Amino acid sequence: MIKKPNELCQKLGLSFNDPKLFIMALTHRSASSNNNERLEFLGDSILGFVVAQKLYELFPEAPEGVLSRLRASLVNQHSLAELARKHQVGDYLLLGSGELKSGGFRRDSILSDAVEAIMGALFKDQGIVVCQQWIEQLFAEQLASLSLENWQKDPKTQLQELMQSKKLSLPDYTLITMSGLAHEQMFKVKCTISLIKDECIGTGISRKRAEQSAAELMLELLNKENK
Amino acid sequence: MIKKPNELCQKLGLSFNDPKLFIMALTHRSASSNNNERLEFLGDSILGFVVAQKLYELFPEAPEGVLSRLRASLVNQHSLAELARKHQVGDYLLLGSGELKSGGFRRDSILSDAVEAIMGALFKDQGIVVCQQWIEQLFAEQLASLSLENWQKDPKTQLQELMQSKKLSLPDYTLITMSGLAHEQMFKVKCTISLIKDECIGTGISRKRAEQSAAELMLELLNKENK
Repeated sequence: MIKKPNELCQKLGLSFNDPKLFIMALTHRSASSNNNERLEFLGDSILGFVVAQKLYELFPEAPEGVLSRLRASLVNQHSLAELARKHQVGDYLLLGSGELKSGGFRRDSILSDAVEAIMGALFKDQGIVVCQQWIEQLFAEQLASLSLENWQKDPKTQLQELMQSKKLSLPDYTLITMSGLAHEQMFKVKCTISLIKDECIGTGISRKRAEQSAAELMLELLNKENK
Repeated sequence: MIKKPNELCQKLGLSFNDPKLFIMALTHRSASSNNNERLEFLGDSILGFVVAQKLYELFPEAPEGVLSRLRASLVNQHSLAELARKHQVGDYLLLGSGELKSGGFRRDSILSDAVEAIMGALFKDQGIVVCQQWIEQLFAEQLASLSLENWQKDPKTQLQELMQSKKLSLPDYTLITMSGLAHEQMFKVKCTISLIKDECIGTGISRKRAEQSAAELMLELLNKENK
Protein backbone atom coordinates (compact mmCIF):
# COMPACT_ATOMS: atom_id res chain seq x y z
CA MET A 1 0.00 0.00 0.00
CA ILE A 2 1.45 3.35 -1.05
CA LYS A 3 -1.06 5.65 0.60
CA LYS A 4 -3.21 5.67 3.73
CA PRO A 5 -6.62 3.99 3.41
CA ASN A 6 -8.23 6.88 5.30
CA GLU A 7 -7.49 9.13 2.38
CA LEU A 8 -9.28 6.81 -0.05
CA CYS A 9 -12.18 6.47 2.34
CA GLN A 10 -12.67 10.24 2.26
CA LYS A 11 -12.27 10.40 -1.51
CA LEU A 12 -15.03 7.83 -1.87
CA GLY A 13 -17.26 9.80 0.50
CA LEU A 14 -17.21 6.99 3.03
CA SER A 15 -16.67 6.76 6.75
CA PHE A 16 -16.38 3.34 8.38
CA ASN A 17 -17.41 2.47 11.91
CA ASP A 18 -15.04 -0.46 11.64
CA PRO A 19 -12.05 0.68 9.56
CA LYS A 20 -10.69 -2.89 9.57
CA LEU A 21 -13.45 -3.85 7.15
CA PHE A 22 -12.32 -1.18 4.72
CA ILE A 23 -8.71 -2.32 4.97
CA MET A 24 -9.77 -5.91 4.39
CA ALA A 25 -11.57 -4.77 1.24
CA LEU A 26 -8.29 -3.36 -0.05
CA THR A 27 -6.31 -6.51 0.73
CA HIS A 28 -5.59 -8.78 -2.21
CA ARG A 29 -5.16 -12.50 -1.59
CA SER A 30 -1.48 -12.17 -2.50
CA ALA A 31 -0.95 -10.05 0.60
CA SER A 32 -2.79 -11.95 3.31
CA SER A 33 -5.12 -14.83 4.02
CA ASN A 34 -7.35 -12.22 5.64
CA ASN A 35 -8.15 -10.78 2.22
CA ASN A 36 -11.03 -9.27 0.28
CA GLU A 37 -12.34 -12.39 -1.48
CA ARG A 38 -15.29 -13.02 0.82
CA LEU A 39 -16.25 -9.33 0.85
CA GLU A 40 -16.06 -9.36 -2.94
CA PHE A 41 -18.51 -12.28 -3.05
CA LEU A 42 -20.89 -10.29 -0.88
CA GLY A 43 -20.36 -7.01 -2.75
CA ASP A 44 -20.89 -8.63 -6.13
CA SER A 45 -24.34 -9.84 -5.08
CA ILE A 46 -25.27 -6.47 -3.59
CA LEU A 47 -24.16 -4.65 -6.72
CA GLY A 48 -26.23 -7.01 -8.87
CA PHE A 49 -29.30 -6.34 -6.76
CA VAL A 50 -28.86 -2.57 -6.51
CA VAL A 51 -28.35 -2.14 -10.24
CA ALA A 52 -31.21 -4.51 -11.08
CA GLN A 53 -33.55 -2.53 -8.87
CA LYS A 54 -32.43 0.80 -10.29
CA LEU A 55 -32.86 -0.39 -13.88
CA TYR A 56 -36.26 -1.86 -13.06
CA GLU A 57 -37.34 1.58 -11.83
CA LEU A 58 -35.64 3.63 -14.55
CA PHE A 59 -36.97 1.60 -17.46
CA PRO A 60 -40.52 0.55 -16.64
CA GLU A 61 -41.15 -0.47 -20.24
CA ALA A 62 -37.98 -2.45 -20.87
CA PRO A 63 -38.39 -6.22 -21.17
CA GLU A 64 -36.31 -8.54 -19.03
CA GLY A 65 -33.74 -9.24 -21.76
CA VAL A 66 -33.02 -5.55 -22.14
CA LEU A 67 -32.67 -5.09 -18.38
CA SER A 68 -30.18 -7.96 -18.29
CA ARG A 69 -28.15 -6.48 -21.12
CA LEU A 70 -28.19 -3.04 -19.56
CA ARG A 71 -26.94 -4.50 -16.31
CA ALA A 72 -24.19 -6.44 -18.07
CA SER A 73 -23.10 -3.24 -19.80
CA LEU A 74 -22.92 -1.38 -16.47
CA VAL A 75 -21.53 -4.09 -14.26
CA ASN A 76 -18.52 -5.86 -15.69
CA GLN A 77 -14.87 -6.15 -14.83
CA HIS A 78 -13.87 -3.40 -17.20
CA SER A 79 -16.43 -0.84 -16.00
CA LEU A 80 -15.66 -1.54 -12.35
CA ALA A 81 -11.92 -1.23 -12.99
CA GLU A 82 -12.57 2.13 -14.66
CA LEU A 83 -14.47 3.28 -11.57
CA ALA A 84 -11.53 2.12 -9.45
CA ARG A 85 -9.11 4.11 -11.64
CA LYS A 86 -11.27 7.21 -11.42
CA HIS A 87 -10.80 7.14 -7.66
CA GLN A 88 -7.17 5.89 -7.74
CA VAL A 89 -8.15 2.77 -5.79
CA GLY A 90 -5.03 1.02 -7.14
CA ASP A 91 -2.77 3.31 -5.10
CA TYR A 92 -4.29 2.02 -1.88
CA LEU A 93 -4.34 -1.72 -2.48
CA LEU A 94 -2.48 -4.14 -0.26
CA LEU A 95 -0.70 -6.52 -2.60
CA GLY A 96 1.90 -9.25 -2.18
CA SER A 97 5.37 -8.47 -3.46
CA GLY A 98 4.90 -10.52 -6.64
CA GLU A 99 1.73 -8.69 -7.59
CA LEU A 100 3.30 -5.37 -6.69
CA LYS A 101 6.23 -6.02 -9.03
CA SER A 102 4.03 -7.20 -11.87
CA GLY A 103 1.79 -4.14 -11.55
CA GLY A 104 -1.25 -5.87 -10.05
CA PHE A 105 -2.60 -2.48 -8.94
CA ARG A 106 -3.24 -1.70 -12.60
CA ARG A 107 -4.99 -4.98 -13.43
CA ASP A 108 -8.71 -4.90 -14.23
CA SER A 109 -9.50 -8.06 -12.25
CA ILE A 110 -7.78 -6.88 -9.06
CA LEU A 111 -9.27 -3.39 -9.30
CA SER A 112 -12.81 -4.55 -9.94
CA ASP A 113 -12.63 -7.11 -7.14
CA ALA A 114 -11.55 -4.35 -4.76
CA VAL A 115 -14.49 -2.15 -5.77
CA GLU A 116 -16.93 -4.98 -5.12
CA ALA A 117 -15.20 -5.76 -1.84
CA ILE A 118 -15.60 -2.13 -0.74
CA MET A 119 -19.33 -2.50 -1.42
CA GLY A 120 -19.40 -5.66 0.68
CA ALA A 121 -17.49 -3.94 3.48
CA LEU A 122 -19.82 -0.94 3.45
CA PHE A 123 -22.82 -3.25 3.62
CA LYS A 124 -21.36 -5.10 6.62
CA ASP A 125 -20.53 -1.79 8.29
CA GLN A 126 -23.67 0.24 7.60
CA GLY A 127 -26.34 -1.95 6.07
CA ILE A 128 -28.10 -2.15 2.75
CA VAL A 129 -29.65 1.34 2.61
CA VAL A 130 -26.37 3.23 2.97
CA CYS A 131 -24.63 0.78 0.66
CA GLN A 132 -27.34 1.14 -1.96
CA GLN A 133 -27.14 4.93 -1.87
CA TRP A 134 -23.39 4.82 -2.29
CA ILE A 135 -23.54 2.41 -5.22
CA GLU A 136 -26.17 4.52 -6.97
CA GLN A 137 -23.98 7.58 -6.46
CA LEU A 138 -20.93 5.71 -7.79
CA PHE A 139 -22.84 4.72 -10.92
CA ALA A 140 -24.76 7.99 -11.25
CA GLU A 141 -22.97 9.08 -14.41
CA GLN A 142 -23.28 5.73 -16.16
CA LEU A 143 -26.92 5.37 -15.15
CA ALA A 144 -27.69 8.83 -16.48
CA SER A 145 -26.04 8.10 -19.81
CA LEU A 146 -27.92 4.88 -20.52
CA SER A 147 -29.99 5.28 -23.62
CA LEU A 148 -32.57 3.29 -25.47
CA GLU A 149 -30.08 2.90 -28.29
CA ASN A 150 -27.81 0.66 -26.23
CA TRP A 151 -30.66 -1.58 -25.18
CA GLN A 152 -31.44 -3.05 -28.47
CA LYS A 153 -28.04 -4.16 -29.56
CA ASP A 154 -27.81 -7.82 -30.42
CA PRO A 155 -25.16 -10.05 -28.79
CA LYS A 156 -22.82 -10.06 -31.84
CA THR A 157 -22.78 -6.26 -31.98
CA GLN A 158 -22.24 -6.05 -28.25
CA LEU A 159 -19.36 -8.53 -28.31
CA GLN A 160 -17.78 -6.74 -31.25
CA GLU A 161 -18.04 -3.37 -29.53
CA LEU A 162 -16.61 -4.83 -26.37
CA MET A 163 -13.55 -6.12 -28.25
CA GLN A 164 -13.19 -2.78 -30.04
CA SER A 165 -13.33 -0.90 -26.73
CA LYS A 166 -10.46 -3.05 -25.49
CA LYS A 167 -8.57 -2.59 -28.79
CA LEU A 168 -8.57 -6.35 -29.39
CA SER A 169 -9.13 -8.23 -32.61
CA LEU A 170 -12.76 -8.90 -33.52
CA PRO A 171 -14.56 -12.12 -32.51
CA ASP A 172 -14.17 -15.08 -34.82
CA TYR A 173 -17.13 -17.26 -35.81
CA THR A 174 -16.58 -20.70 -37.36
CA LEU A 175 -19.31 -22.99 -38.61
CA ILE A 176 -18.71 -26.40 -37.04
CA THR A 177 -21.64 -28.50 -38.18
CA MET A 178 -24.83 -28.20 -40.14
CA SER A 179 -27.25 -31.02 -39.66
CA GLY A 180 -30.82 -32.03 -40.38
CA LEU A 181 -33.01 -31.93 -43.45
CA ALA A 182 -33.38 -28.83 -45.60
CA HIS A 183 -36.40 -27.40 -43.79
CA GLU A 184 -35.17 -28.19 -40.33
CA GLN A 185 -31.46 -27.55 -40.51
CA MET A 186 -29.49 -26.93 -37.37
CA PHE A 187 -26.30 -24.90 -37.34
CA LYS A 188 -23.51 -25.07 -34.81
CA VAL A 189 -21.07 -22.18 -34.66
CA LYS A 190 -17.97 -21.71 -32.56
CA CYS A 191 -17.07 -18.25 -31.28
CA THR A 192 -13.55 -17.45 -30.17
CA ILE A 193 -12.02 -14.18 -29.00
CA SER A 194 -8.50 -13.16 -28.17
CA LEU A 195 -9.40 -12.21 -24.59
CA ILE A 196 -9.91 -15.73 -23.20
CA LYS A 197 -9.07 -19.25 -24.30
CA ASP A 198 -12.54 -20.71 -23.92
CA GLU A 199 -14.64 -21.35 -26.97
CA CYS A 200 -18.38 -20.88 -26.97
CA ILE A 201 -20.59 -22.96 -29.19
CA GLY A 202 -23.97 -21.69 -30.23
CA THR A 203 -26.73 -23.47 -32.10
CA GLY A 204 -29.60 -22.16 -34.16
CA ILE A 205 -31.83 -22.74 -37.14
CA SER A 206 -29.68 -20.44 -39.26
CA ARG A 207 -25.99 -19.65 -39.30
CA LYS A 208 -26.78 -16.13 -38.17
CA ARG A 209 -28.84 -17.31 -35.22
CA ALA A 210 -26.13 -19.78 -34.22
CA GLU A 211 -23.60 -16.94 -34.30
CA GLN A 212 -25.84 -14.76 -32.14
CA SER A 213 -26.26 -17.61 -29.70
CA ALA A 214 -22.47 -18.20 -29.57
CA ALA A 215 -21.88 -14.46 -29.03
CA GLU A 216 -24.46 -14.43 -26.25
CA LEU A 217 -22.78 -17.35 -24.49
CA MET A 218 -19.44 -15.59 -24.83
CA LEU A 219 -20.87 -12.39 -23.32
CA GLU A 220 -22.29 -14.43 -20.45
CA LEU A 221 -18.96 -16.14 -19.93
CA LEU A 222 -17.13 -12.81 -19.90
CA ASN A 223 -19.73 -11.38 -17.61
CA LYS A 224 -19.40 -14.38 -15.31
CA GLU A 225 -15.64 -13.99 -15.29
CA ASN A 226 -16.03 -10.24 -15.02
CA LYS A 227 -13.86 -9.58 -18.04
CA MET B 1 -55.13 -20.48 -13.37
CA ILE B 2 -56.99 -23.25 -11.62
CA LYS B 3 -57.16 -21.76 -8.16
CA LYS B 4 -57.45 -18.29 -6.61
CA PRO B 5 -54.17 -16.46 -6.07
CA ASN B 6 -55.33 -15.37 -2.63
CA GLU B 7 -55.14 -18.94 -1.47
CA LEU B 8 -51.51 -19.26 -2.57
CA CYS B 9 -50.68 -15.94 -0.97
CA GLN B 10 -51.90 -17.27 2.37
CA LYS B 11 -50.11 -20.59 1.93
CA LEU B 12 -46.89 -18.70 1.36
CA GLY B 13 -47.49 -16.60 4.47
CA LEU B 14 -47.77 -13.45 2.39
CA SER B 15 -50.18 -10.55 2.25
CA PHE B 16 -49.84 -8.00 -0.56
CA ASN B 17 -50.77 -4.33 -0.36
CA ASP B 18 -51.02 -4.42 -4.13
CA PRO B 19 -52.43 -7.84 -5.09
CA LYS B 20 -51.87 -7.02 -8.79
CA LEU B 21 -48.15 -7.45 -8.22
CA PHE B 22 -48.69 -10.95 -6.91
CA ILE B 23 -50.90 -11.84 -9.87
CA MET B 24 -48.28 -10.46 -12.25
CA ALA B 25 -45.71 -12.71 -10.60
CA LEU B 26 -47.89 -15.72 -11.43
CA THR B 27 -48.38 -14.68 -15.06
CA HIS B 28 -46.24 -16.51 -17.59
CA ARG B 29 -45.31 -14.73 -20.83
CA SER B 30 -47.52 -17.17 -22.73
CA ALA B 31 -50.58 -15.69 -21.00
CA SER B 32 -50.01 -11.94 -21.25
CA SER B 33 -47.55 -9.24 -22.22
CA ASN B 34 -48.01 -8.01 -18.68
CA ASN B 35 -46.13 -11.01 -17.35
CA ASN B 36 -43.63 -11.97 -14.66
CA GLU B 37 -40.38 -11.64 -16.63
CA ARG B 38 -39.34 -8.25 -15.24
CA LEU B 39 -40.25 -9.27 -11.69
CA GLU B 40 -38.21 -12.44 -12.17
CA PHE B 41 -35.17 -10.33 -13.18
CA LEU B 42 -35.60 -8.34 -9.99
CA GLY B 43 -36.31 -11.37 -7.79
CA ASP B 44 -33.30 -13.26 -9.13
CA SER B 45 -30.97 -10.47 -8.06
CA ILE B 46 -32.60 -10.18 -4.63
CA LEU B 47 -32.37 -13.91 -4.08
CA GLY B 48 -28.68 -13.86 -5.02
CA PHE B 49 -28.02 -11.11 -2.53
CA VAL B 50 -30.07 -12.56 0.32
CA VAL B 51 -28.49 -15.98 0.03
CA ALA B 52 -24.98 -14.53 -0.35
CA GLN B 53 -25.44 -12.51 2.80
CA LYS B 54 -26.84 -15.44 4.73
CA LEU B 55 -23.98 -17.73 3.68
CA TYR B 56 -21.43 -15.04 4.50
CA GLU B 57 -22.83 -14.94 8.03
CA LEU B 58 -23.35 -18.66 8.49
CA PHE B 59 -19.89 -19.69 7.31
CA PRO B 60 -17.40 -17.10 8.56
CA GLU B 61 -14.48 -19.37 7.75
CA ALA B 62 -15.50 -20.46 4.26
CA PRO B 63 -13.45 -19.07 1.39
CA GLU B 64 -15.14 -17.30 -1.48
CA GLY B 65 -15.09 -20.33 -3.78
CA VAL B 66 -16.96 -22.40 -1.22
CA LEU B 67 -19.55 -19.65 -0.67
CA SER B 68 -20.12 -19.52 -4.44
CA ARG B 69 -20.56 -23.26 -4.64
CA LEU B 70 -22.91 -23.32 -1.68
CA ARG B 71 -25.01 -20.62 -3.27
CA ALA B 72 -25.11 -22.48 -6.59
CA SER B 73 -26.26 -25.60 -4.77
CA LEU B 74 -29.07 -23.69 -3.03
CA VAL B 75 -30.16 -21.41 -5.82
CA ASN B 76 -30.71 -23.16 -9.12
CA GLN B 77 -33.65 -23.89 -11.37
CA HIS B 78 -34.17 -27.32 -9.91
CA SER B 79 -34.13 -26.27 -6.25
CA LEU B 80 -36.46 -23.33 -6.92
CA ALA B 81 -38.85 -25.57 -8.85
CA GLU B 82 -38.87 -27.96 -5.90
CA LEU B 83 -39.78 -25.10 -3.58
CA ALA B 84 -42.56 -24.17 -6.00
CA ARG B 85 -43.88 -27.75 -5.96
CA LYS B 86 -43.80 -27.87 -2.18
CA HIS B 87 -46.25 -24.97 -2.15
CA GLN B 88 -48.22 -26.08 -5.24
CA VAL B 89 -47.32 -22.85 -7.05
CA GLY B 90 -48.00 -24.58 -10.39
CA ASP B 91 -51.72 -24.78 -9.61
CA TYR B 92 -51.95 -21.01 -9.49
CA LEU B 93 -49.97 -20.01 -12.58
CA LEU B 94 -51.53 -18.04 -15.40
CA LEU B 95 -50.40 -19.79 -18.57
CA GLY B 96 -51.33 -19.47 -22.24
CA SER B 97 -53.36 -22.30 -23.72
CA GLY B 98 -50.33 -23.90 -25.42
CA GLU B 99 -48.35 -24.03 -22.20
CA LEU B 100 -51.38 -25.28 -20.31
CA LYS B 101 -51.82 -28.17 -22.72
CA SER B 102 -48.16 -29.09 -22.70
CA GLY B 103 -48.06 -29.08 -18.89
CA GLY B 104 -46.05 -25.89 -18.43
CA PHE B 105 -47.17 -25.73 -14.79
CA ARG B 106 -44.98 -28.75 -14.14
CA ARG B 107 -41.88 -27.42 -15.90
CA ASP B 108 -38.84 -26.51 -13.78
CA SER B 109 -38.08 -23.32 -15.73
CA ILE B 110 -41.60 -21.90 -15.44
CA LEU B 111 -41.91 -22.84 -11.78
CA SER B 112 -38.55 -21.41 -10.75
CA ASP B 113 -39.19 -18.19 -12.68
CA ALA B 114 -42.48 -17.79 -10.83
CA VAL B 115 -40.77 -18.23 -7.46
CA GLU B 116 -38.22 -15.56 -8.31
CA ALA B 117 -40.97 -13.30 -9.64
CA ILE B 118 -42.87 -13.66 -6.34
CA MET B 119 -39.70 -12.49 -4.57
CA GLY B 120 -39.50 -9.50 -6.92
CA ALA B 121 -43.17 -8.69 -6.34
CA LEU B 122 -42.80 -8.91 -2.57
CA PHE B 123 -39.80 -6.59 -2.72
CA LYS B 124 -41.75 -4.04 -4.78
CA ASP B 125 -44.69 -4.32 -2.41
CA GLN B 126 -42.95 -4.34 0.97
CA GLY B 127 -39.27 -3.57 0.56
CA ILE B 128 -36.07 -5.47 1.11
CA VAL B 129 -36.37 -6.29 4.81
CA VAL B 130 -39.68 -8.14 4.53
CA CYS B 131 -38.54 -9.80 1.31
CA GLN B 132 -35.31 -10.94 2.91
CA GLN B 133 -37.12 -12.42 5.90
CA TRP B 134 -39.48 -14.31 3.64
CA ILE B 135 -36.67 -15.71 1.48
CA GLU B 136 -34.72 -16.84 4.54
CA GLN B 137 -37.84 -18.55 5.82
CA LEU B 138 -38.43 -20.20 2.45
CA PHE B 139 -34.89 -21.57 2.43
CA ALA B 140 -34.73 -22.30 6.16
CA GLU B 141 -34.66 -26.06 5.73
CA GLN B 142 -32.01 -26.05 3.00
CA LEU B 143 -29.88 -23.54 4.89
CA ALA B 144 -30.06 -25.66 8.02
CA SER B 145 -29.00 -28.79 6.16
CA LEU B 146 -25.90 -27.31 4.54
CA SER B 147 -22.86 -29.11 5.75
CA LEU B 148 -19.15 -28.77 5.46
CA GLU B 149 -19.12 -31.97 3.46
CA ASN B 150 -20.92 -30.38 0.53
CA TRP B 151 -18.54 -27.44 0.44
CA GLN B 152 -15.47 -29.22 -0.54
CA LYS B 153 -16.74 -31.17 -3.47
CA ASP B 154 -14.80 -30.58 -6.64
CA PRO B 155 -16.61 -29.50 -9.83
CA LYS B 156 -16.52 -32.98 -11.45
CA THR B 157 -18.12 -34.56 -8.40
CA GLN B 158 -20.71 -31.82 -8.22
CA LEU B 159 -21.61 -32.12 -11.89
CA GLN B 160 -21.83 -35.89 -11.60
CA GLU B 161 -24.09 -35.68 -8.56
CA LEU B 162 -26.26 -33.11 -10.30
CA MET B 163 -26.75 -35.45 -13.26
CA GLN B 164 -27.45 -38.35 -10.92
CA SER B 165 -30.04 -36.30 -9.02
CA LYS B 166 -31.83 -35.68 -12.34
CA LYS B 167 -31.47 -39.35 -13.31
CA LEU B 168 -29.50 -38.40 -16.43
CA SER B 169 -26.46 -40.08 -17.92
CA LEU B 170 -23.12 -39.04 -16.45
CA PRO B 171 -21.03 -36.21 -17.93
CA ASP B 172 -18.71 -37.12 -20.77
CA TYR B 173 -15.11 -35.85 -20.93
CA THR B 174 -13.12 -36.04 -24.16
CA LEU B 175 -9.51 -35.04 -24.57
CA ILE B 176 -9.33 -32.68 -27.55
CA THR B 177 -5.72 -31.59 -27.66
CA MET B 178 -2.50 -31.97 -25.76
CA SER B 179 0.16 -29.46 -26.61
CA GLY B 180 3.51 -28.17 -25.42
CA LEU B 181 6.74 -29.82 -24.38
CA ALA B 182 6.84 -32.63 -21.84
CA HIS B 183 7.33 -30.44 -18.77
CA GLU B 184 4.85 -27.79 -19.81
CA GLN B 185 2.09 -29.73 -21.45
CA MET B 186 -1.35 -28.21 -21.82
CA PHE B 187 -4.48 -30.31 -21.98
CA LYS B 188 -7.79 -29.33 -23.52
CA VAL B 189 -10.86 -31.36 -22.55
CA LYS B 190 -14.42 -31.11 -23.78
CA CYS B 191 -17.28 -31.78 -21.37
CA THR B 192 -20.74 -32.67 -22.64
CA ILE B 193 -23.89 -33.61 -20.75
CA SER B 194 -27.28 -34.80 -21.89
CA LEU B 195 -29.08 -31.84 -20.29
CA ILE B 196 -27.97 -29.14 -22.74
CA LYS B 197 -26.39 -29.04 -26.16
CA ASP B 198 -23.54 -26.70 -25.33
CA GLU B 199 -20.07 -28.07 -24.90
CA CYS B 200 -17.63 -26.67 -22.37
CA ILE B 201 -13.94 -26.77 -22.99
CA GLY B 202 -11.53 -26.68 -20.09
CA THR B 203 -7.78 -26.38 -20.12
CA GLY B 204 -5.16 -27.38 -17.58
CA ILE B 205 -1.67 -28.66 -17.03
CA SER B 206 -2.99 -32.19 -16.58
CA ARG B 207 -5.90 -34.06 -18.06
CA LYS B 208 -7.51 -34.16 -14.65
CA ARG B 209 -7.23 -30.41 -14.18
CA ALA B 210 -8.61 -29.78 -17.65
CA GLU B 211 -11.58 -32.02 -16.81
CA GLN B 212 -12.19 -30.14 -13.56
CA SER B 213 -12.02 -26.87 -15.43
CA ALA B 214 -14.49 -28.11 -18.07
CA ALA B 215 -16.84 -29.36 -15.33
CA GLU B 216 -16.61 -26.01 -13.56
CA LEU B 217 -17.52 -24.14 -16.76
CA MET B 218 -20.43 -26.50 -17.27
CA LEU B 219 -21.68 -25.90 -13.72
CA GLU B 220 -21.42 -22.17 -14.32
CA LEU B 221 -23.31 -22.47 -17.58
CA LEU B 222 -26.05 -24.51 -15.93
CA ASN B 223 -26.15 -22.09 -13.05
CA LYS B 224 -26.39 -19.18 -15.48
CA GLU B 225 -29.19 -20.91 -17.33
CA ASN B 226 -30.73 -21.97 -14.03
CA LYS B 227 -30.83 -25.62 -14.99
